[in-house]
Amino acid sequence: MSAIPADLPLRTDLVGEEPYGAPQLDVPVCLNVNENPYPLDPEVVEAICRRVGEEAPGLNRYPDREHEGLRKALAAYLKEESQAALEPDQVWAANGSNEIMLQLFQAFGGPGRTVLGCDPTYSMYPEYARDTFTDWELAHRLPDFSLDMETTIERIKALGPAMVLVTSPNNPTGTPLPMEELTRLLEVCSQVHVSGADQSARPIVVVDEAYIEFRDPGTPSAVSLIGRYDHLAVSRTMSKAFAFAGARVGYLAASRGIIDAVRIVRMPYHLSALTQVAALAALEHTDLQLARVGKLRETRRKTAGWLSEQEYHGQPLTVVPSASNFILFGIFPDRNAIFGAMKEAGVLIRAVGPEGYLRVCMGTDAEMERFRGTLVDVLKRF
Amino acid sequence: MSAIPADLPLRTDLVGEEPYGAPQLDVPVCLNVNENPYPLDPEVVEAICRRVGEEAPGLNRYPDREHEGLRKALAAYLKEESQAALEPDQVWAANGSNEIMLQLFQAFGGPGRTVLGCDPTYSMYPEYARDTFTDWELAHRLPDFSLDMETTIERIKALGPAMVLVTSPNNPTGTPLPMEELTRLLEVCSQVHVSGADQSARPIVVVDEAYIEFRDPGTPSAVSLIGRYDHLAVSRTMSKAFAFAGARVGYLAASRGIIDAVRIVRMPYHLSALTQVAALAALEHTDLQLARVGKLRETRRKTAGWLSEQEYHGQPLTVVPSASNFILFGIFPDRNAIFGAMKEAGVLIRAVGPEGYLRVCMGTDAEMERFRGTLVDVLKRF
Repeated sequence: MSAIPADLPLRTDLVGEEPYGAPQLDVPVCLNVNENPYPLDPEVVEAICRRVGEEAPGLNRYPDREHEGLRKALAAYLKEESQAALEPDQVWAANGSNEIMLQLFQAFGGPGRTVLGCDPTYSMYPEYARDTFTDWELAHRLPDFSLDMETTIERIKALGPAMVLVTSPNNPTGTPLPMEELTRLLEVCSQVHVSGADQSARPIVVVDEAYIEFRDPGTPSAVSLIGRYDHLAVSRTMSKAFAFAGARVGYLAASRGIIDAVRIVRMPYHLSALTQVAALAALEHTDLQLARVGKLRETRRKTAGWLSEQEYHGQPLTVVPSASNFILFGIFPDRNAIFGAMKEAGVLIRAVGPEGYLRVCMGTDAEMERFRGTLVDVLKRF
Repeated sequence: MSAIPADLPLRTDLVGEEPYGAPQLDVPVCLNVNENPYPLDPEVVEAICRRVGEEAPGLNRYPDREHEGLRKALAAYLKEESQAALEPDQVWAANGSNEIMLQLFQAFGGPGRTVLGCDPTYSMYPEYARDTFTDWELAHRLPDFSLDMETTIERIKALGPAMVLVTSPNNPTGTPLPMEELTRLLEVCSQVHVSGADQSARPIVVVDEAYIEFRDPGTPSAVSLIGRYDHLAVSRTMSKAFAFAGARVGYLAASRGIIDAVRIVRMPYHLSALTQVAALAALEHTDLQLARVGKLRETRRKTAGWLSEQEYHGQPLTVVPSASNFILFGIFPDRNAIFGAMKEAGVLIRAVGPEGYLRVCMGTDAEMERFRGTLVDVLKRF
């Protein structure tokens, strides 16, 4: 990236900032951005092409701003996946959960407003705050990366944040959020005043469930609480378990009031007609799109086990228990050296999260075999 | 839209706001959102399907964040369409020019910053300002809707805006911006300090050329000035002349510094793989996508002539000269009554812009015939 000339009126707080994102490199094994490694089934490809072929002649016209067909299909998906009976007007979609989160920050954040997160967590959150001039505050997680409930509650009461943002499973640690902790946060928030807002306003609890489909079967999703709590918003995505990252479909499940607030700030026609029909085609083949989730859970179990058996300089590796499709492991005095040597050897993982840790996402069997072989080799050399 | 409950911490300045957008109604003749009325050619549809079919198996992976292929194709398009020799890194695309504009406001606006527009103009501009906490100021246009250059320059000097936003052709008036006026604005801005920014910062001139392909042949586009002025940004879209509104592709042509600033605030992976390949397929068939532009110009000429011959209560209608695919006409003491009666009769136009005016966009011959017949009938009745 070239330096931005000083005669351009770039926002002062953006001077020196770099665009967010993991490097997009041409490397044989990419285990760095938590994608589902399995390509789409030909049946789904065919369904997408058929829908696109039907839609394409009419692309001269604007798409359905309210994307009603897609919201209906997403509500049906949530009913099946999370046993949550939501109406389509309790669901909202956007170009990736990035846009969902930005819309939430735009509707409820802004100057004088605070959002509270629980770190270590997803590194995009401070960017949503920065882009909407919202204060970003933190309640640190415990050493095992679970929420520090007492500190978090204390911070909520002290700050009166507009939103409390928790991630389940958390990225990059993989840590799930137990439902009783979420319920407790919701109850606390219903008693707290929001600083900088009307006296009656209460903090919204936003649960980022980008990786939720990888949780252990039988574990409930926050979506099942939406009927009970109007100040709960759950962000989801089709990018991870659903194997649809390239199509950019994030969605929000929440009370009608939260959805209506987001509708005020959304750009008109934000969701293209092609995105809408491609997502519909994929949702019609939910079984095929999710077919490898069980396999990826198994890969996680095996990989976590294998990592626990590895040693570095005579010490066993630390492996953080994960409910997602990635595993955080360490602890390396110079993680960047390990990361770089892995990359050189054709395996791209991620140096992210707490100091000394690396994150690897679950690939195909062949990719994981190469990951293991390369890691063994690299750990010997550094 | 339901009322948003008071216990949700909606931003105070959004309370009572409604989502932006013309009604999406099931009406036989829609001449209200300035679409190209002609569906895509089967050859383009086939090309889109072919590209989507190639891309779809890999939708489990994230798209190219820098959308390099698309930027290259857009640069080639601008070279052909506007005789502007731009490199791909002087071009940037997003989900509609809405997102382009929002990114510009995010990068250069914000609290303490001002953007100056020239009204009457596009009604979304204040929303970009509102969504980024930017002050939105106005320099009013002259009675013929051309820029009031003296007032505009005075306002630029007095306010020190981060951006000056001009629209050519202007929406909803259709008024083109002469290149000598644009050049004068650029020269003035290069001498002005931006309020709230570093001393060396100069206002950016943003030209919104959403409708530029409808201009009279031979008229230059602001894009041709980009090599000369680093503080010029030109927003474009494939939604209008290019007949691609449903695919949501807006783009920006500007100096590398402006593009790099926008890259800081863009959401990672904002542009889906399907959007990228569909746009590439359409750009490979530019001739077919633009095939009806000449026809729509002719429809505009004829419609403007016809409207000028119509009378309302014994007075000839006022018809604003347009370089776009829509015409603003009036003046009606109760434009909403005319709008409503047209809608009842199956012809949706738009009550927008200065008091008393209505805007109609150019449809097919059959649609325009129905528009004329309905208008004659309605003008007799009110």
